[in-house]
Amino acid sequence: MKIEVYDSTLREGAQRSGVVFSDYEKLKIITCLDSLGTSYIETGFFCAADAEALSALAEKARTERSVLSALCATVRPGTRACDDPVLRSLAASRYPAAAVVGKASASQVSEVLGTTPEENLRMIGDTVSFLKKSGKTVFFDAEHFFDGWKENSEYALASVTAARAAGADAVVLCDTNGGSLPRDVGEVTEKVCLALPGTAVGIHCHNDIGMADASTVAAVCGGASHVQLTVMGIGERCGNADLTTVVPVLQLKLGHSCIPDDGMKHITEIARKICHTANLGFDECAPFVGEFAFSHKAGMHIDALLKQSDSFEHIDPSLVGNRRTLVVSELAGKAAVREMLVRFGYEVEKDDPVIGRVQRLLRSSEAAGMQFDSAEASLRLIAGRAMGDLSVPFAAVDYKLIFSAGETPERSWSAVVRFDTPEESRVSAGEGDGPVNALDVAAHSVLDPLFPGIENVKMLDIKARIDSYDSMASASIVRVFVESGCAGKVWHTMGASTDIIAASWMALCDAYEYYLNYVRGK
Amino acid sequence: MKIEVYDSTLREGAQRSGVVFSDYEKLKIITCLDSLGTSYIETGFFCAADAEALSALAEKARTERSVLSALCATVRPGTRACDDPVLRSLAASRYPAAAVVGKASASQVSEVLGTTPEENLRMIGDTVSFLKKSGKTVFFDAEHFFDGWKENSEYALASVTAARAAGADAVVLCDTNGGSLPRDVGEVTEKVCLALPGTAVGIHCHNDIGMADASTVAAVCGGASHVQLTVMGIGERCGNADLTTVVPVLQLKLGHSCIPDDGMKHITEIARKICHTANLGFDECAPFVGEFAFSHKAGMHIDALLKQSDSFEHIDPSLVGNRRTLVVSELAGKAAVREMLVRFGYEVEKDDPVIGRVQRLLRSSEAAGMQFDSAEASLRLIAGRAMGDLSVPFAAVDYKLIFSAGETPERSWSAVVRFDTPEESRVSAGEGDGPVNALDVAAHSVLDPLFPGIENVKMLDIKARIDSYDSMASASIVRVFVESGCAGKVWHTMGASTDIIAASWMALCDAYEYYLNYVRGK
Repeated sequence: MKIEVYDSTLREGAQRSGVVFSDYEKLKIITCLDSLGTSYIETGFFCAADAEALSALAEKARTERSVLSALCATVRPGTRACDDPVLRSLAASRYPAAAVVGKASASQVSEVLGTTPEENLRMIGDTVSFLKKSGKTVFFDAEHFFDGWKENSEYALASVTAARAAGADAVVLCDTNGGSLPRDVGEVTEKVCLALPGTAVGIHCHNDIGMADASTVAAVCGGASHVQLTVMGIGERCGNADLTTVVPVLQLKLGHSCIPDDGMKHITEIARKICHTANLGFDECAPFVGEFAFSHKAGMHIDALLKQSDSFEHIDPSLVGNRRTLVVSELAGKAAVREMLVRFGYEVEKDDPVIGRVQRLLRSSEAAGMQFDSAEASLRLIAGRAMGDLSVPFAAVDYKLIFSAGETPERSWSAVVRFDTPEESRVSAGEGDGPVNALDVAAHSVLDPLFPGIENVKMLDIKARIDSYDSMASASIVRVFVESGCAGKVWHTMGASTDIIAASWMALCDAYEYYLNYVRGK
Repeated sequence: MKIEVYDSTLREGAQRSGVVFSDYEKLKIITCLDSLGTSYIETGFFCAADAEALSALAEKARTERSVLSALCATVRPGTRACDDPVLRSLAASRYPAAAVVGKASASQVSEVLGTTPEENLRMIGDTVSFLKKSGKTVFFDAEHFFDGWKENSEYALASVTAARAAGADAVVLCDTNGGSLPRDVGEVTEKVCLALPGTAVGIHCHNDIGMADASTVAAVCGGASHVQLTVMGIGERCGNADLTTVVPVLQLKLGHSCIPDDGMKHITEIARKICHTANLGFDECAPFVGEFAFSHKAGMHIDALLKQSDSFEHIDPSLVGNRRTLVVSELAGKAAVREMLVRFGYEVEKDDPVIGRVQRLLRSSEAAGMQFDSAEASLRLIAGRAMGDLSVPFAAVDYKLIFSAGETPERSWSAVVRFDTPEESRVSAGEGDGPVNALDVAAHSVLDPLFPGIENVKMLDIKARIDSYDSMASASIVRVFVESGCAGKVWHTMGASTDIIAASWMALCDAYEYYLNYVRGK
């Protein structure tokens, strides 16, 4: 079945604590969603304060496959849509589509809206038909539909019937509080579909009990053909139904048609870009698109996986543009090491002695505290070193840090670093707010003139972990993980030491070396 | 219905990329789960490499309500359980319960295990009955059950029937690849329950399509009475069914009985403690227990919420020990501040101006990055300072660190620290493997002669976290949490700074000061 995907990342996503989208970011995200091929993109809530900005956005945005939409509220009690300046402005805008949110719960109508059930139905019908007359595709978002249904199913149905009678292209059932169970959402959706034959029914779920994705799928199984979603489920409170989970489930597991295949093949990359643009950390455990979605750590599992690839994988990762990662751990057998080398593009026979060499290198690194499962780029460098193919070799030789803290609140770190290349040895210095910042600044002052392009490499994230425990914990092994990025590429490195600064320095140097060997010019 | 909650955070959680639990951390998490009141706690995978450590853990762990369990594999093809050293060691251990994982998929048996269907059934029965004979409660985890069912439902059923016949207390259906849909999981579970009347059936789901929670709930609706879960869904790949979501849904939404009410009221706090111990960032958007789970940002929503509290809240947040947050008013309530002061033993009237003073101190600390929820001792000191009751005042005035790293592997940190007491100012120095170790050694060399007893204060654990993200990540706020202990007492302090060393120093100094004021001589 063809399912309309209506993305609301730009509107619902902006309700999430800490998220604000600039116009520039909105345009970038629209481009991403268009390349994914969602049917609709909702850009925001069209209200008095934002009407002008959202109208201007529709002028600027260019899409090839997706249709732009904006959400608006129904007219207020006792007023007419044709007199409403916001609705007139929306009607006159370049949006080809609009969603109208209105109440489907009888108690909400009296207690929150303060009007009669009949007036609410008139407001819904008036708003929908006014926007239909302006030539737009119009969806009706029936707020609190499922809670309203429990309380008074007749009235809930009347609200969507009013919208349909006024010409709504789809009526969208909303689980506004996110407290409904999938089986209830599925059953109610089926009843609405039976009650309104020939009407396209949609679904819009919040994740307050962790079941927005399952409820959305249950609604489609009950007959819904329009799904409202956000990328990575970004939204208020616990978020919304997640496009990057629901669309692969509907398309790859249930055989529905949601987005073009070429969009699906890039969904992992696009999800990452959108989260980056929203300045949100990426959930690496996310189904389908997370880095760990197809990663395998336990030795027992890896053996089974190599024998039968569907043992621990429910789909082929390449369908969603992701890949299998075998976490090479201490216990990893030679088969896993070979598979890793093959993945990195080396041709290695089963009995090649290089496998043993890499295995020994890995073991000694792990004994020193390295954990490669979150640091693929550092693992790549170990393999590259063992295979002797690092084309841009350099050695970070040493560093010095000077710190002083007095009675004033100003603190200052200075770093002096030295790098050797086959041709020369260079020293430079840098200052920063903290030791790692100072080392990064100093390293760039050496490397930027030597390797044009490296000035664009930025540290995007840094995490320190101290896993082991002993009675002198301040001397325990510290692991530092660094995420670096440049021109849309992102890579992960790490270092381990009893000294957090030394660990950070290892991770930083791996990040530079990885860039020079595997990112620059590829 | 009574539902057995079988927690597997310590085993499945350790499969998550980046997670390693020390024994000390395992004991802490066991205490947390026991206070939550889960029926069972699985501590690890009992295999040759870990048998000794897991047996020792069972000797050390003390629980009041939860029963300890360990997972083991069935015997190998062609061998007998009574000859298997690992199973014998498990049988002899102090674990009152064990789970046996075995294959339920016919193709897995031939392709991965390389044996006959009959031999696999014998292996299951032999292992279960051997452990039953040692007096344990035994669960059978039927690996790949749902995929196996699709392929050959008769054989899948035969595998759990064999376990049941051998005396298994429950047979647990596992969605090992996490690719099954909730409706399928519900239907198959119902069929198994009908086929095996009088047998307790369990469910164990992975989250690869984002539906582990929904599938677990669907299985319970289909008749399962034993649920295997992990706190916050921590697990390999996309994780497992989430205890902190599934248990509130089953108990608060569907009326089943899973954990005691007093456990439920602390589930938010306990989930946070466990994530902290695992050094995982806490998902503030998590259903029920996240900080944002009941937060409201949109003006429209907040209006409705104040008019009708169930408008945008599906349950009362206090049932799970969480609270509503209206983002519109960032003012920390005076009532909450007063409540904290009363908890610390101060008698404070509602209109006491000290409340405003403490509130301002807290706000400025939080603006600087402090988070007191995992650092009660630092909070105690802020209250003590505001109330003027620190009887042993001292000030850590400054510190200097000297570090040099050359071409040799030896690294050395030296610290010079100065402390002021009302009587004098003292300076001393110390050396260590890392900067924090050096600071700790230097501080003790000043404080030990001044304050007899403080030489016994040890740093038990230290964790660093960098939560915020910006393009100059190496200058982001670092939060350092220190756990200190002395004579069986344990306390938690923290520091925050762009500089990890400065943050560590704040946390260390709070630890010493807390000891002198609130531990020594009490």
